[in-house]
Amino acid sequence: MRIALALEYDGAGFCGWQSQSNRCGVQDALESALGVFVGAEVRAHCAGRTDAGVHALAQIAHIDTVVIRDVKSWVRGTNAHLPSSVRVVWATPVSDDFHARFSAQSRSYQYVLLNDSVEGALTSRSVGFFHVPLDTQAMQAAATMLLGEHDFSSFRAAECQAKSPVRTLYQATIERRGRHIFFKFRANAFLHHMIRNIVGGLVSVGAERHSQQQFMDILKARNRVVAAPTFSAAGLYLTDVQYDPGFGLPVGAASLERHPFFSERH
Amino acid sequence: MRIALALEYDGAGFCGWQSQSNRCGVQDALESALGVFVGAEVRAHCAGRTDAGVHALAQIAHIDTVVIRDVKSWVRGTNAHLPSSVRVVWATPVSDDFHARFSAQSRSYQYVLLNDSVEGALTSRSVGFFHVPLDTQAMQAAATMLLGEHDFSSFRAAECQAKSPVRTLYQATIERRGRHIFFKFRANAFLHHMIRNIVGGLVSVGAERHSQQQFMDILKARNRVVAAPTFSAAGLYLTDVQYDPGFGLPVGAASLERHPFFSERH
Repeated sequence: MRIALALEYDGAGFCGWQSQSNRCGVQDALESALGVFVGAEVRAHCAGRTDAGVHALAQIAHIDTVVIRDVKSWVRGTNAHLPSSVRVVWATPVSDDFHARFSAQSRSYQYVLLNDSVEGALTSRSVGFFHVPLDTQAMQAAATMLLGEHDFSSFRAAECQAKSPVRTLYQATIERRGRHIFFKFRANAFLHHMIRNIVGGLVSVGAERHSQQQFMDILKARNRVVAAPTFSAAGLYLTDVQYDPGFGLPVGAASLERHPFFSERH
Repeated sequence: MRIALALEYDGAGFCGWQSQSNRCGVQDALESALGVFVGAEVRAHCAGRTDAGVHALAQIAHIDTVVIRDVKSWVRGTNAHLPSSVRVVWATPVSDDFHARFSAQSRSYQYVLLNDSVEGALTSRSVGFFHVPLDTQAMQAAATMLLGEHDFSSFRAAECQAKSPVRTLYQATIERRGRHIFFKFRANAFLHHMIRNIVGGLVSVGAERHSQQQFMDILKARNRVVAAPTFSAAGLYLTDVQYDPGFGLPVGAASLERHPFFSERH
């Protein structure tokens, strides 16, 4: 039987999603908890392998198991064995042709940036920071130029293992809310560090270090070396994963309601 | 020369505001940083001595010093020696008759509660939690009955050192925003644990464990023993302190803009 799970986690204490020999991955915490709950070894597959420090409001994972439990038990039973920084928000049985990663049609992320002269004492692990006042209109104009299918090599980490640097960006929205800037991105998939590198590039535009034209030249160069620096993982959230409605998963937007940063923002 | 400072801090790593022999207080961190910056021992006085785990967006403190620095230097120089969980947001010279505690006319706090079946993975140290759906209209009706001058002994910690249990509550507002409930309180001053005990009492009303009448009977009993449990410190924020405008302090509402929980909410 295949079970899909939605996971919320604070990435600050983890080395990323992926299992590591020293067990510092979110996957390690989840597989340990599930293993205790079902009394057997469990392997979890996820929709988006987030980096160290990156958070999730709705990471989707699936597992295969012969154990039969009701839906509430999967949530409560697994949570009972997870650290407080990881929570299963829902669980639901799915058909065997569902795969958390390969069935995903697109992924949504948000990046939250404090744009003020002094860093946030309460948000140093949950929000990015930039001290120079940013022109969000110029940033939105640059972001809009990224929409559609592009070779994103200029915004790709050297360690990226994807076969192709071509991705299709469906959404790139920038909203100011008080002293914070919220970036919303949705794409079929993202390259390693792609969002944090795009945020770095957009901040360079907003701070008037790069013109719109220079930003486009960086994209066209298909070369990471010419681009702006990678932004901090602290502000990045995997907020939703989109699947064919036929799989019958709960609607992802509800998970935004569970964090006060995002609860009026979907 | 007297300097007033606004402080933002994440209370989760501190044993409260007050200096302790093991140096675990926010006051200890601040006095150490100021001491390094000015090269002499500095004593800080604050508006509201927050408990262990309670946060501040605008704790106001004052110090006396013979050192002359410009306003930006006080902010940057002190922040350079503070842990990332404490930040000086602004500093300003004030007249000698200003006292952070005794000049304060009133204090504002907000309490943030996640009301959902599963705890927040990202907010376990920054938001309170209650799993049963709450009736916020009933809670607002009960909260409104607390407005004005009352003997708040039923909502006072046993360890409270205040001479009188009488306080005047100017604001008690409850707002639902998605799956969170925001409580706003303003009073001339608060007793030890008063807000966390009131939140506990209001949650009992919202969960239909206590009627409005029972809630009022608890207030009138002037006896802590009959009241609901103290709620977690995690969700409590000192958000503003009000002074006579003649002192010329920056307006406190700006500090709410520095945290995404509150930035659209003042």
